[in-house]
Amino acid sequence: MSRPDPGFPVRALRAEELQPLATGAWILGAGGGGDPYHAYLNLRRLYAEGASVSLVDPLALPDDALVAVVSTMGAPLVGEERLTDPEVAAAPVVHMEEHLGRRFDAVMSLEIGGSNAFQPLMAAAVIGLPVVDADTMGRAYPEAQHSSFAIGDLRPFPLTLADVRDNAVVVSRVASWKWMERISRKVCAEVGSVAATCKAPRTAAEVKAWGVLHTVTQAIRLGEAVLEARRRKDDPVRAVVEHAGGALLFSGKVVDVARRTTEGFLRGNARLDGLDGDHGHELRVDFQNEFTVGWLDGEARVTVPDIICLLDATTGEAIGTEALRYGQRVKVVALPAPAVQTTAKGLEHVGPRAFGYDLDFRSVFEDAR
Amino acid sequence: MSRPDPGFPVRALRAEELQPLATGAWILGAGGGGDPYHAYLNLRRLYAEGASVSLVDPLALPDDALVAVVSTMGAPLVGEERLTDPEVAAAPVVHMEEHLGRRFDAVMSLEIGGSNAFQPLMAAAVIGLPVVDADTMGRAYPEAQHSSFAIGDLRPFPLTLADVRDNAVVVSRVASWKWMERISRKVCAEVGSVAATCKAPRTAAEVKAWGVLHTVTQAIRLGEAVLEARRRKDDPVRAVVEHAGGALLFSGKVVDVARRTTEGFLRGNARLDGLDGDHGHELRVDFQNEFTVGWLDGEARVTVPDIICLLDATTGEAIGTEALRYGQRVKVVALPAPAVQTTAKGLEHVGPRAFGYDLDFRSVFEDAR
Repeated sequence: MSRPDPGFPVRALRAEELQPLATGAWILGAGGGGDPYHAYLNLRRLYAEGASVSLVDPLALPDDALVAVVSTMGAPLVGEERLTDPEVAAAPVVHMEEHLGRRFDAVMSLEIGGSNAFQPLMAAAVIGLPVVDADTMGRAYPEAQHSSFAIGDLRPFPLTLADVRDNAVVVSRVASWKWMERISRKVCAEVGSVAATCKAPRTAAEVKAWGVLHTVTQAIRLGEAVLEARRRKDDPVRAVVEHAGGALLFSGKVVDVARRTTEGFLRGNARLDGLDGDHGHELRVDFQNEFTVGWLDGEARVTVPDIICLLDATTGEAIGTEALRYGQRVKVVALPAPAVQTTAKGLEHVGPRAFGYDLDFRSVFEDAR
Repeated sequence: MSRPDPGFPVRALRAEELQPLATGAWILGAGGGGDPYHAYLNLRRLYAEGASVSLVDPLALPDDALVAVVSTMGAPLVGEERLTDPEVAAAPVVHMEEHLGRRFDAVMSLEIGGSNAFQPLMAAAVIGLPVVDADTMGRAYPEAQHSSFAIGDLRPFPLTLADVRDNAVVVSRVASWKWMERISRKVCAEVGSVAATCKAPRTAAEVKAWGVLHTVTQAIRLGEAVLEARRRKDDPVRAVVEHAGGALLFSGKVVDVARRTTEGFLRGNARLDGLDGDHGHELRVDFQNEFTVGWLDGEARVTVPDIICLLDATTGEAIGTEALRYGQRVKVVALPAPAVQTTAKGLEHVGPRAFGYDLDFRSVFEDAR
């Protein structure tokens, strides 16, 4: 499918960029967002069949352009069994257009982290719209109120939600972002803890003011750095740290995983016994879909919004909270959070207290700055 | 508020009909639907302030007239604390008009039983629409697929739902009636187990074909019979049985009540020890919002869709499942079900098996017929 010339400059996303995007987005997932592998295979097939997707720089969009913000919401573990499908990804966008009585000009991702990096690409390939080079998290987060649009107090509604059975819901008005999260999460859980959504429509002016910009490109570049290090037999984890200005926090082996899928989320924690320089130490990492807090020998070492990544010690491949298992050799890396998340208002939404911890945020990058 | 002349004949519902409607609708509630008392007071105040509501015979509506089908959904016990408000009753109707881009011609009740008899009156008073003299159950039932429109396999969507906080949801498409029930019930439970809804819009042709007709009038007449018996110091329970062609099944005292509000419903059972001619016998009555099965000395004596009513032995006032308590002297009465519910297709929707009982329906009126 295709729609008329959008009237603003776009560039074609090349087929060779899809694998780096999958690798980079999975790292930015911070353990959540779901493994992009199947979505990447989906896109690769669409490209092989002749489809292609255009990227647009958000700064090149006219202020009144209307942007569809899409994601698959749900528990990552469920996404391992019920795979995302381009037609289902597109359904809530089309449904939102019907609800609004107006066409969108572009699609963007709610979260660049994990498989949702590919959600707008799939919707765009089906509908024929360009994809905005931006998201609202710079990573993955579990709930609606964690988006930068929520931090900006933008309007949380309407939201459309669709599942594989042709159920569709419009959450047309909510009293708050938290109510949007509560209501949409219950519907999501009822249809099987995974659903395609189109969040509240945004003007390009709102995206420019409150989006986390150029994160599609950022994820591709991060993935390229990892793939390049693997090709050169360099250390891919060091490539991540150097490319992204991150910090290596811990090397260890997974010795225990507690995990349950509950209320539409995957919650639990993993315990790591230290290896190499960290021998004799223990790191416990908690998660709600994404990693939230890392405890080194019982003391908080790293918390949201710092991006906490568990990477395979050899390949640098990200390990999702749904795939953690005994015996994995991992390196724990922190990447700096987008600036919007470390303001006082940002921390109200995504700081440790927003996840139920009685902790103040102290970035692992604070000393280094 | 008012809207233009509807173009079909209507009659004013008189203020004196409101109390009989409350009394009659509460009996037809079969224990559920919620006590209409507060809704009745609400309407009485609106009438005192100059409002009035018109009734229209469904058979007088042009076939293409569009009818809003309204109800408060939720657990009756919650309705005791969070009262229905005319503005909230009207909200999902207005919201549906926005979603459809079309005005309604009239409002009707999903269920005549309990407080939902007053739901269209409240919405109508606010919006200025006439109320159709019909419903879809002839009583109260707990779930979406129990409506006669579901028995008729009419389209289950869209549905709009609104709560007191200005949350609003459109369930715009569902794979089945059961999915409509599942999704809307979860949203209802999340906003506090009570919400105002506007069900799938119906043409008057659909109402004539599948509605349960003239039930507003039927409820008023039943209530009048009870009130008249009380005035004359006659037995009001006998008046119910005689007026409605019912059967007196049991006289007893409530000796135990098990009740829990769960998943948006009020579930449980009550045990009655026999009095008078029923001395030495026990009747247990199960309920899911409404009474479903009565067990006499352990054997099924009466089941849905027969309308099972527990009435105060002295006043004939209905007793709701949320108000059952130890020591109440009650008479258990069965009233005949609307014909649409006793067909093979009807029993699939509202027979005992639809409520999880391994029982065939045998009406208590079968012998008498």
